[in-house]
Amino acid sequence: MDRRQFVQHAAALAAIPAVGRFAGLASPASSQAKPLTVNGARLNGWLAQFDQIGRTAGGINRVAYSEADLAGRAFTKQLFAQSGLQLRVDTAGNLLARVPGTDAARRPILIGSHVDSVTDGGNYDGPVGSFGAIEVARSLAEQKVRLRHPLEVVVWQNEEGGTIGSKIAVGLMTPADLDKVARSGKTVREGIGLIGGDVSRLNESVRKKGDIAGYIELHIEQGGLLEKANRQIGVVEGIVGLRWFEITITGFANHAGATPMDQRQDAMLAAAKFTVAVNEAIRGEAGRQVATVGRLNVSPNTTNVIPGQVVLTVDLRDLDQQKIDRFTATFEKLGRDIGEATRTTFAFNQLVNSTPALSDARIMDVVASSATALGLSHQRMPSGAGHDAQEVAHIAPMGMIFVPSVGGISHSPKEFSRADDITNGANVLMNAVVGLDRVL
Amino acid sequence: MDRRQFVQHAAALAAIPAVGRFAGLASPASSQAKPLTVNGARLNGWLAQFDQIGRTAGGINRVAYSEADLAGRAFTKQLFAQSGLQLRVDTAGNLLARVPGTDAARRPILIGSHVDSVTDGGNYDGPVGSFGAIEVARSLAEQKVRLRHPLEVVVWQNEEGGTIGSKIAVGLMTPADLDKVARSGKTVREGIGLIGGDVSRLNESVRKKGDIAGYIELHIEQGGLLEKANRQIGVVEGIVGLRWFEITITGFANHAGATPMDQRQDAMLAAAKFTVAVNEAIRGEAGRQVATVGRLNVSPNTTNVIPGQVVLTVDLRDLDQQKIDRFTATFEKLGRDIGEATRTTFAFNQLVNSTPALSDARIMDVVASSATALGLSHQRMPSGAGHDAQEVAHIAPMGMIFVPSVGGISHSPKEFSRADDITNGANVLMNAVVGLDRVL
Repeated sequence: MDRRQFVQHAAALAAIPAVGRFAGLASPASSQAKPLTVNGARLNGWLAQFDQIGRTAGGINRVAYSEADLAGRAFTKQLFAQSGLQLRVDTAGNLLARVPGTDAARRPILIGSHVDSVTDGGNYDGPVGSFGAIEVARSLAEQKVRLRHPLEVVVWQNEEGGTIGSKIAVGLMTPADLDKVARSGKTVREGIGLIGGDVSRLNESVRKKGDIAGYIELHIEQGGLLEKANRQIGVVEGIVGLRWFEITITGFANHAGATPMDQRQDAMLAAAKFTVAVNEAIRGEAGRQVATVGRLNVSPNTTNVIPGQVVLTVDLRDLDQQKIDRFTATFEKLGRDIGEATRTTFAFNQLVNSTPALSDARIMDVVASSATALGLSHQRMPSGAGHDAQEVAHIAPMGMIFVPSVGGISHSPKEFSRADDITNGANVLMNAVVGLDRVL
Repeated sequence: MDRRQFVQHAAALAAIPAVGRFAGLASPASSQAKPLTVNGARLNGWLAQFDQIGRTAGGINRVAYSEADLAGRAFTKQLFAQSGLQLRVDTAGNLLARVPGTDAARRPILIGSHVDSVTDGGNYDGPVGSFGAIEVARSLAEQKVRLRHPLEVVVWQNEEGGTIGSKIAVGLMTPADLDKVARSGKTVREGIGLIGGDVSRLNESVRKKGDIAGYIELHIEQGGLLEKANRQIGVVEGIVGLRWFEITITGFANHAGATPMDQRQDAMLAAAKFTVAVNEAIRGEAGRQVATVGRLNVSPNTTNVIPGQVVLTVDLRDLDQQKIDRFTATFEKLGRDIGEATRTTFAFNQLVNSTPALSDARIMDVVASSATALGLSHQRMPSGAGHDAQEVAHIAPMGMIFVPSVGGISHSPKEFSRADDITNGANVLMNAVVGLDRVL
């Protein structure tokens, strides 16, 4: 989006009626009371407007620190303002607003998500939870529901580039991370400057353990589990741990016509056997663990030459760290055995390793009971994708609410979640916040 | 090689003593007589000199129509001249020389090979048979052995780019083939002009069935069969037929973390199962058939995305056309079955299809008996690689002589054949020519 387009968006936003400062006071809804509901039409209207920002022929492109990301953040800032939320940009570039609670001694309940996208992505991954959080804060104010805890709304910067904003907020950012080049072509360091942060004062944005009473993030599922099970709400049990391996299989390149089958050291055959074996191992055990060979490059990659080398990756995820460790050992053994059988060598290199982040039991309970009170079908499930919530889990009790992704598709222009499902998710978030305010 | 280097080569060549025109007459050696032998030191000396032409850090690069190929052809022309062979360049750009026979009614026996190379290849694939043929003609003259048949020595142009010179010579070249871009970046049409041919008169180079009494090509094996069996000579039974498939496997790209294992349409998993199944099918049956998955490209090829599409190739070869047809059907069925099991689709596209070219029984016999007479161990075997001989087989009885490739390596800078093995091969060629002259 260029500046002219942005001005049009800003004008469109000005038409959204603003609420005043939170004036009234009301008791939190009791568990017997009629559940609270957000203004779903308003929330989905914001998402529809947002769909025009960073939209290209290939999909939504609001990659962090790009022009479209800046435009998306400007739109989001206006939503804060129009919703009566006083915006603060922290030194990391995260967008924040705080609604005071009735008990000054209490730590804030934090809700939010992100608004940046992947390359050629969709409009729902991030914005649903970010705008949902703004809508919840606004509806609580409109309905004069005042919490004991302060309520903070956050829109984390650069989630898709490695949960950068939330990583800074929990003190896990390293100087090396700052020099990583983001998808926009800019380093994280440059990006933080662009979005109004200050890399020399990042420590001012760091929260310590105990600083946050609890964090709830609404998000699209990004998989097809809810749709397949015909459930409206996912109560997230945690974000899976993830381990990425890059495996180099070395054989010997030779003539595809002149080399008999029993004299080959075929790196592609070894890679194929390994890919099948990894799949069989993962599926051969009960549970929700997943493993994927997503990237594979063959050398010399010529029709009439037996491949001499294959480099492939395995992406392994589960909610149980012990299972990740066990499958790591299984994969390494498969590599050794297949290497021996095919006269090739397997060299494993671990690229990424993140431990599982488990949801807080009380937050799962208030999410589930909120869904029940709203008459929404729900089930517990892990998040296979990474989220800012996994960073916040390092310092605070955390939980997530999932709404269905049609066809289980995300990180794609085909990513889509229905308006009703989004409204349901925001309603669950609203009641979960109120419920959590009571139980914490 | 630049011009200055070429002048140095030409000077080196001038030091090779030339024989005069073939003056003497001698009876062909009888099967009881001591077998004839070439000047192996001279032959291997030529090869050692030739190793400097087109030599780069990556290997020998005498790709057809390149500067280095032109230099290689110039060196070869000098060998013809120094050996008393009167060179003719046909309109296709093939190098030819004819030694008259004693019987004017007889059609020529043709011997030769090529001198162009692949990209980053070796010094033996082609030159061994080309220089071997020149050496045999020269030694026959020096030893005053005169044949009944005329003897023609040929060095075919652009073998590695698709047996272009020999294809023209047997009338199988199409106008579309002429517009193909060779590895040098020039079209075949342009290349023919560069090497002294004339595309407007290609028909003048075409030989018809019956024009050639027989063709024998000496070549390195390019595989490891002879070395493994500890044999000095391969009596080639024919050149395998070849079929190339490009197979597009379509699944559905999705999030590697959020998509449960039982909801995937993983094109890479399907490709891996297919690669393993093709290998098992080929190895599950007795015989020397080979099949190779050499090229494989994954989309989107990202660690955390389940592959939505894989394009791979299968290279299938055998001496028996029926077996090729049968395995084609097997592979197509495997594609259907694996596609169904993995919820992907397999689309087969045939890229190349050449039928097997079988050696002439009489030529195999004279090659085998020549090896026996020379005290050389030998065995019959197919050629898994393609050769100019497969084109000549369309119009004349054909046979090939293989000498071992160390480690079975070719199309590589590591390609190597021992001087003694090369001399053995040329000796077998010399006696086979004499033997064939008698039996035809």
